Amino acid sequence: MAFTAPVAEQRFVLDTVANIGELAKTERFAAATPDVIDAVLEGAAQFAAGEWAPLNRVGDTVGAKWSPDGVVMPDGYREAYQAYVEGGWGTIGVSEAFGGQGLPFVVQAAVLETLGSANMGFALCPTLTVGAIEAIEHHGTPEQQALYLPKLATGEWTGTMNLTEPQAGSDVGALRATATPRRDGTFSIKGTKIYISFGDHDMADNIVHLVLARTPDAPAGTRGISLFLVPKVRADGTQNDVRVVSIEHKMGLHASPTCVLSFGDHDDCTGELIGPEFGGMRAMFTMMNNARLNVGLQGVQVAEAATQKAVEYAKERVQGARAGAQSAIIEHPDVRRMLMRMKAQTMAARALVYYACGQVDRAGMGDAAAKDRLEITTPLAKAHATDLGNEIASIGVQVHGGMGFVEETGAAQFFRDARITPIYEGTNGIQAADLVGRKLSLSNGAAFASLIADMRAEAEHPRLTALVDACEAIGRRLQTADADDRQAASYPFLTMLSVATCGWLLERQARDAGADAVKQASVAFYLDQIVPEAMGLEAAANAPAASLYALNADAF
Amino acid sequence: MAFTAPVAEQRFVLDTVANIGELAKTERFAAATPDVIDAVLEGAAQFAAGEWAPLNRVGDTVGAKWSPDGVVMPDGYREAYQAYVEGGWGTIGVSEAFGGQGLPFVVQAAVLETLGSANMGFALCPTLTVGAIEAIEHHGTPEQQALYLPKLATGEWTGTMNLTEPQAGSDVGALRATATPRRDGTFSIKGTKIYISFGDHDMADNIVHLVLARTPDAPAGTRGISLFLVPKVRADGTQNDVRVVSIEHKMGLHASPTCVLSFGDHDDCTGELIGPEFGGMRAMFTMMNNARLNVGLQGVQVAEAATQKAVEYAKERVQGARAGAQSAIIEHPDVRRMLMRMKAQTMAARALVYYACGQVDRAGMGDAAAKDRLEITTPLAKAHATDLGNEIASIGVQVHGGMGFVEETGAAQFFRDARITPIYEGTNGIQAADLVGRKLSLSNGAAFASLIADMRAEAEHPRLTALVDACEAIGRRLQTADADDRQAASYPFLTMLSVATCGWLLERQARDAGADAVKQASVAFYLDQIVPEAMGLEAAANAPAASLYALNADAF
Repeated sequence: MAFTAPVAEQRFVLDTVANIGELAKTERFAAATPDVIDAVLEGAAQFAAGEWAPLNRVGDTVGAKWSPDGVVMPDGYREAYQAYVEGGWGTIGVSEAFGGQGLPFVVQAAVLETLGSANMGFALCPTLTVGAIEAIEHHGTPEQQALYLPKLATGEWTGTMNLTEPQAGSDVGALRATATPRRDGTFSIKGTKIYISFGDHDMADNIVHLVLARTPDAPAGTRGISLFLVPKVRADGTQNDVRVVSIEHKMGLHASPTCVLSFGDHDDCTGELIGPEFGGMRAMFTMMNNARLNVGLQGVQVAEAATQKAVEYAKERVQGARAGAQSAIIEHPDVRRMLMRMKAQTMAARALVYYACGQVDRAGMGDAAAKDRLEITTPLAKAHATDLGNEIASIGVQVHGGMGFVEETGAAQFFRDARITPIYEGTNGIQAADLVGRKLSLSNGAAFASLIADMRAEAEHPRLTALVDACEAIGRRLQTADADDRQAASYPFLTMLSVATCGWLLERQARDAGADAVKQASVAFYLDQIVPEAMGLEAAANAPAASLYALNADAF
Repeated sequence: MAFTAPVAEQRFVLDTVANIGELAKTERFAAATPDVIDAVLEGAAQFAAGEWAPLNRVGDTVGAKWSPDGVVMPDGYREAYQAYVEGGWGTIGVSEAFGGQGLPFVVQAAVLETLGSANMGFALCPTLTVGAIEAIEHHGTPEQQALYLPKLATGEWTGTMNLTEPQAGSDVGALRATATPRRDGTFSIKGTKIYISFGDHDMADNIVHLVLARTPDAPAGTRGISLFLVPKVRADGTQNDVRVVSIEHKMGLHASPTCVLSFGDHDDCTGELIGPEFGGMRAMFTMMNNARLNVGLQGVQVAEAATQKAVEYAKERVQGARAGAQSAIIEHPDVRRMLMRMKAQTMAARALVYYACGQVDRAGMGDAAAKDRLEITTPLAKAHATDLGNEIASIGVQVHGGMGFVEETGAAQFFRDARITPIYEGTNGIQAADLVGRKLSLSNGAAFASLIADMRAEAEHPRLTALVDACEAIGRRLQTADADDRQAASYPFLTMLSVATCGWLLERQARDAGADAVKQASVAFYLDQIVPEAMGLEAAANAPAASLYALNADAF
């Protein structure tokens, strides 16, 4: 059975959780009529199943390859990417002014979900292009926008994000790449960047690198960082001085080349400033925040794909008996438990990520409350949805038994592919630190208080209300706790608040779902079995940092 | 830094949890003097670090290879295996009557732990040989014992277990391999077996396959199964008719060839009956039960190795600041949390597995209470310790950040290697079914009641006593619940009972550990943070099967 996008579920979540009907009433998103949304979801489903899913395995087994002339994608990827460009799938969320369809970010997310469930490594390429578009749309000059956005919107050109250097990972402020001004207003870029996804490939005519670097005499740390646009091919058609040194040998996501890029080996790397000098972090956050949501979305992608595969296997595999009759393993209670968990957690991850994506659209229209809500749910969506993607992919392996450990079934690939998602775009630990460090105190704590109040106003299941209460108490305590105590509690608290948010959004779905048996059973399972697990983290979320520093580092 | 076996911790756990001093007072284990134990642990540590750990990576990157002439191990493995044989490391737990050292099973487990932490895939080979030795020691004729055991004890010959066939995985009773009697008392074996670890290799002169098969007119199901010994090379020096058809392409454990074996392609495969006809399941359980403990031990192996690697990285990697000063990441609270969790869970896994292994030694001397305790802790040790191995390996990847997803560091290998352990030797779901199906009612429930009573007599921390109470209530309810309800609750209940058992054994360790800061901090972390998580599973363990069957299979 091929991958089938869960179109009805996507549409339902867009309606109930992202309230896309409300968005469609605005002038900005007037294009988002029900018919258009249905056509987009259906079309993406057909495209992904027909063109991208069949390439998922060769992406893993052959993978992207380095050559002296650049990165070579596996057979079929060039053509499938071309079909993506021609189908207009890159243009969904881009403004009409730049050749896009002007649909909401959350609809674009639904399309990316489908593409990524079909082929997660491949879908990372357009995901990064989305980030580049946002940076240029928000911070570029009109000339830069006119030159780059139409090509990026179609996907004829692709985008990258260049933050990390060997000594500067989570600590972006430690980066050393330099940008020296030239007489013509451009900059000469020099430095090495690592972990650049799709930093090179052979599917597009140009690649637009967005690069963080320091101008001469820039202050230390993040305050001295500026953002530069460095095209692989310059406007005059000449090759820029950017070289792909190597690609990483990774555990998974082999279709996505993770590049080491060297800028300015021959002192001839041309970059343009995007936004003001020293405005690099702000511009980068524009793309990074939405990129975090899109990584959370990868959790949904792999969860959906792994669940479909496990269900298919469990229906086919006959082994043992239940109630005296030989049966497919889906009839065995513990296999059922695993599959119900996969179903419910996939729904939870999708609800959480779509919800946050819907806030991007509202915040973009100047809604300050939505901006707060987006800020506080972004770390939840990134961290918790990727944790769920990993959990679900692992259960998927388990459902397959011995076949899950053998590569041919594909369950193992999901497990390997998923493992990067809690790491990149800010590790999940960084997300947790962001939640307790910046987001709990955002708008003087109103962002958090308002989320709690909204949950409390709707939550019905006593386990869910108990979890909301616990989250409020812990969150309030952490708002005034010292930095170490806050961070010590950060991860368990993030998980609790994420589960509370998911439970709230799933209860809402159950109210709207009528007699939909799958939805009702999955939500009931979530509230009855998964919500109480999160309460089991309360002790850890209340433990002081001292418990973690009882040992000196040397004693470990 | 190379792998360093945790010799002091192993010795401490042998003392406090396995009470090896008590064992040494028996005639059977008089050889297990403190000096001997120390020498064995130290010697194994040096051997493993010097000879086996350096081959771990080539085992992964090159792996065992199939050829028409048989499986070829990576360079260095033949010599390192020879060094293992010459060092006498295979003889630890074998009776002196057959050339062994007559030391306790739990001491052999400590040695296997060290070997497997250094090189998990490699250590699976001697682990399987241990199983073959046990089957022959308990069920073979004196002639069979004299012929096979001395060579298996040294490891000059290795052993395998042949249960699984394509249609007979968890449901062993569905197997179809046949054994036809011959005039000379031997049997002609015919059939195909899959997932045979070290089913072929080039490190030993002979391989002793223990094969489950059916004699003519045998009853259906498990009652009609007999066990046969099928040597790769027959006593007359001729090659037996056993062919390695292929090896699996697996996600991890590449040093361990997972073979498809074809017996009797040319109707010339000679097997000898081991034990009585139709006694195959009983004989197989002899080796399988202890093999389950040794798979639980693999959880300990990977947990220890992954923790050491993560700690090393966290001490070296400088990134960001704590309290205003640049620091290694081990100083950051959330990294601390991850490392404390790794430490505490590794200790928990080791305590649980060593405890069960110590019962093997007592049960072997006819101690009925120990036999009950062994039976009820075996599914806990197999399932929970392997779950922990996976959890810890995943945290290890996370501590490494982006480097964890890149294969060069080795963190990814642990993550991939560990993933088979919850699957083979009976999936963890099968373990949970065994716990609630057979073990809760063992000795009319006395096996369970006595474990609860022992825990209650010693447990001090209020969270631990609450967990023990919850386990007792759930266990009692499940003893009389219907089969579906029992199985629906089985996995969460298994985890709760495992954590309670670990907490009990760790509290005991803390009482004996005096001022050992690592032990005290780790146990406190376990009791304060991990025990309450297990309480979060109470709702799931009390949920009826109906919640899992709200949907028809077709609706998934």
